[in-house]
Amino acid sequence: MRASQFHIGTLKEAPSDAEIVSHQLMTRAGMIRKLAGGIYNYMPIGLRVIRKVEAIIREEMNRAGALELLMPVVQPAELWMESGRWEQYGPELLRMKDRHGRDFVLQPTSEEVITDIARNEIHSWRQLPKNFYHIQTKFRDERRPRFGVMRGREFTMKDAYSFDRDEAGAQKSYDAMYDAYMRIFARMGLTFRAVAADTGSIGGTRSHEFQVIADTGEDLIVYNPATQYAANIELAEAPCLVARRAAPGRTLEKAPTPGATKCEAVSELLGLPLASHVKSLALAVEPEEAGKPVQIWLLLLRADHELNEIKAGKIPGLDHGYRFATDAEIVDHFGCVPGFIGPVGTAKPVKVVADRTVANLHDFVTGANQADHHYVGVNWGRDLPEPDLVADLRNVVDGDPSPDGSGPLAIQRGIEVGHVFFLGTKYSEALKATYLDETGKPALLQMGCYGIGVTRLLGAAIEQHHDARGIIWPRALAPFEVVVCPVGWGKSEAVREAATRLYEGLREAGVDAILDDRDERPGVMFADWELIGVPVRVTIGDRGLKDGQIELQGRGDEAAAKIPVGEALAATLARLAQAN
Amino acid sequence: MRASQFHIGTLKEAPSDAEIVSHQLMTRAGMIRKLAGGIYNYMPIGLRVIRKVEAIIREEMNRAGALELLMPVVQPAELWMESGRWEQYGPELLRMKDRHGRDFVLQPTSEEVITDIARNEIHSWRQLPKNFYHIQTKFRDERRPRFGVMRGREFTMKDAYSFDRDEAGAQKSYDAMYDAYMRIFARMGLTFRAVAADTGSIGGTRSHEFQVIADTGEDLIVYNPATQYAANIELAEAPCLVARRAAPGRTLEKAPTPGATKCEAVSELLGLPLASHVKSLALAVEPEEAGKPVQIWLLLLRADHELNEIKAGKIPGLDHGYRFATDAEIVDHFGCVPGFIGPVGTAKPVKVVADRTVANLHDFVTGANQADHHYVGVNWGRDLPEPDLVADLRNVVDGDPSPDGSGPLAIQRGIEVGHVFFLGTKYSEALKATYLDETGKPALLQMGCYGIGVTRLLGAAIEQHHDARGIIWPRALAPFEVVVCPVGWGKSEAVREAATRLYEGLREAGVDAILDDRDERPGVMFADWELIGVPVRVTIGDRGLKDGQIELQGRGDEAAAKIPVGEALAATLARLAQAN
Repeated sequence: MRASQFHIGTLKEAPSDAEIVSHQLMTRAGMIRKLAGGIYNYMPIGLRVIRKVEAIIREEMNRAGALELLMPVVQPAELWMESGRWEQYGPELLRMKDRHGRDFVLQPTSEEVITDIARNEIHSWRQLPKNFYHIQTKFRDERRPRFGVMRGREFTMKDAYSFDRDEAGAQKSYDAMYDAYMRIFARMGLTFRAVAADTGSIGGTRSHEFQVIADTGEDLIVYNPATQYAANIELAEAPCLVARRAAPGRTLEKAPTPGATKCEAVSELLGLPLASHVKSLALAVEPEEAGKPVQIWLLLLRADHELNEIKAGKIPGLDHGYRFATDAEIVDHFGCVPGFIGPVGTAKPVKVVADRTVANLHDFVTGANQADHHYVGVNWGRDLPEPDLVADLRNVVDGDPSPDGSGPLAIQRGIEVGHVFFLGTKYSEALKATYLDETGKPALLQMGCYGIGVTRLLGAAIEQHHDARGIIWPRALAPFEVVVCPVGWGKSEAVREAATRLYEGLREAGVDAILDDRDERPGVMFADWELIGVPVRVTIGDRGLKDGQIELQGRGDEAAAKIPVGEALAATLARLAQAN
Repeated sequence: MRASQFHIGTLKEAPSDAEIVSHQLMTRAGMIRKLAGGIYNYMPIGLRVIRKVEAIIREEMNRAGALELLMPVVQPAELWMESGRWEQYGPELLRMKDRHGRDFVLQPTSEEVITDIARNEIHSWRQLPKNFYHIQTKFRDERRPRFGVMRGREFTMKDAYSFDRDEAGAQKSYDAMYDAYMRIFARMGLTFRAVAADTGSIGGTRSHEFQVIADTGEDLIVYNPATQYAANIELAEAPCLVARRAAPGRTLEKAPTPGATKCEAVSELLGLPLASHVKSLALAVEPEEAGKPVQIWLLLLRADHELNEIKAGKIPGLDHGYRFATDAEIVDHFGCVPGFIGPVGTAKPVKVVADRTVANLHDFVTGANQADHHYVGVNWGRDLPEPDLVADLRNVVDGDPSPDGSGPLAIQRGIEVGHVFFLGTKYSEALKATYLDETGKPALLQMGCYGIGVTRLLGAAIEQHHDARGIIWPRALAPFEVVVCPVGWGKSEAVREAATRLYEGLREAGVDAILDDRDERPGVMFADWELIGVPVRVTIGDRGLKDGQIELQGRGDEAAAKIPVGEALAATLARLAQAN
């Protein structure tokens, strides 16, 4: 490609709504242009990256035996009603009516349609396993789209769906996708982790997220640097930090703690370490039948720990939904204003759930169910009954022992770019997607689903690979691998000749190169290509050519290397081979 | 690809709503599955063809210097209001509201968005010319979607948009696209014609359609077999068939023609050739100001010719819209019931437009403006004034002299798969898309737009290339180029070995081959692959191998050729090279 025949739309300034660096750099590099909130045009330079992402995904999906098809963007509501998601999906599901008043949705994913295909196409166990995927436009009507392509409304996703005879087969399909994803993100030159994850609203029993590591990520990843263990903090198991509960060492005392509603303030006031305080969180569960009373739960966590709401939502009794109790409900059940409640001597009975660590504490501090007072020296069994339930309620913190028993856990931030789910029969049951097994009996298809955010990957890669001057593309994703920058294109025949020769040589060697024949000043050219993030730049000018030299610089290199002009092609190829 | 790892979804029966052969065959071959009216899933075998179509288009678009980008499916209404198409576009434009109640459309084309991009990105004449294209999902909410992918609602289209400094530049861009389209459809192995076409509602001044020739096509193409002349019948110029008007030879007579309201009946009754009859069509033009009277026009055509409504709509005075006159309007203006009206002695004045041929007739027959009577021996000048206007009003008929002056015209049917338009400044004016010219003054961008119906091409190719057994794909579009059919895969090691060797050899030679390892009976395999339309089939069985032979058959061949097994690869490659 010659730059004069391409469209380079670099900008000095990022738009004011670009909060994160990838959004800023993608706009400034001319990769995207906003059309509406969360809806972007992908300009030629941005589309080049998308195509490289898609090609890697396609190759690895095909290698794993998945079959590409194409399901429509516009899908009839009937199938979504059949699965129940027409009701369950919130306003993110864009619904519309056609000219005849029939209901349709813009697909956010395609579980319903692929299950419909499977129930029509898969008749016999002989046809299994099957894995179908498509790379297609998706739409999610985010309430507040932002972060550029990271949380857009219209985006491109690769979604795959596997169909198997039984759980063991489905696990094999899941593992094959897991392995394909590992290859895909490795080939893209990204630093990433596969982490165990919560299955959320998609349902199913097992799931892994693929997280690109970046300080700006929205997800917290818990991992053991010494082993393979890694999980999203939503799921990561938090161990009990106290091996055995010690015998009481203090008597129970009620201490005045005027105005101290926060554990930190109580700790300071009483001169006792924060880790000896227990915080009391009152939750409410609405009754199943109208007219019955609200049920109040009390969750106990060590004061230096944080509640993990996903884990709380899995506790039997809380797993059909809960909310935080209102002030009135707290006063009613604890006989005390919020800020001083605790498990000892509640006004009405409440369900007490202790975090694993709390269950083994002794001589701890809790609210006294009396305004401006806390109990000190609280001990299980002696001062209050054993908790109704002991559970993992908290987020892992840095340094917690790993659940796999080897050393402390660490925490880092990540950007989710892929997700694999073991779905089981959730959709095949709803849509009655069966096949005839070897005995001729109908059996439900076992399913998995597997997504990769194609356009989001661009943002994630940039969050991980950039500096103050712009993007630093991994070679596999770069819009161009090499840029040849002739200085004085319009003036010097020698420069034109040397630059063109190198450019042609690179192209013949199969390199995706661009020749910047715009006749711009070096400063303009360099700023453009550093912003765009091309891995290798070659500068050819009269001054260097006089000494028989050209300049070669990797995007991350401190300085350019001077290379004899005769070695230009070989040296460029060698430098490119070293690029990430 | 091995068939056992692919999904082959051939069907014995076509769905009852499949009216045309391409719809029947695409469904039966397992290429498409209907999801909703005019909305299809593209199954793996169908998507393979789409990808081949897209690859050819992409290569030729890039070769012509066009730049690929990607514009969204969901587009904000504001831009469509700016162009005026929010109002003008009928119910085919699917409109919807997002969760915040803002108006959006599903794109049927992208003139508005690309013009918005251009006005933001193109600042200077130095950036011109530019041609941007994308291959993207489109949606048109057809009232009655049918004919499978030929008139669907959701479909894939390649649309390109060129931007130039002036008309001469825009003409160059147009010509480059015309040439690219010629290469594209030729590479696809299609018999097609580029025909001059009407610009219709897209606007602009010049346009060509690319028509795949097929008897089942909806369009009529007029062409000169001896020259390059070709035009859609909507546009094709119909010449005057009478070189000079002869002097009157008969006196004017009123003849009784009881009940004969059709020219054919009058001709039979009077014993005069149909070509001496003139039919009178009364049109009405609504007044511009309410309260003013409707204006009645009388269009005169030779009785054996047909009115071309597009041509009529271009006549000054009719070019803002017309309709056929009502019976009451006819009685009011002609003093006579419909069926017997004519230009001689109307009750009220009407505008008379004569077709070119009618203008040179003499001694002709027309209605007498009296029930059950016609005039015979009518002559211009003597019996009625010269017509107010002489114009080309009729459809060309087979055998008409060509407008380029060399021999008779022929007519054939075609399927429109591409269309190029010279748009001029229609959209740049509406959206104020300007650039700074060499003098630093803002000037409107000159535009062209260029579409290819990607998914429709599949249907068109099949309409042109099929027989009773199924599809006959041109090699360039075939989902697989060669199928290797082993007879007795499960039983014979020798068959497995020979088939696998040939299959691997084909793959190494870069052939897109499939090995049918399903262990089906030959009849089932042959029926599947003939239905699917793979260009070359190789059959390998124990019986042939005993004689050292395999069987090779092109999809259109009468019979298979026996080939020595040692020459299997070379012979298959040679046969494939002969395929269209």
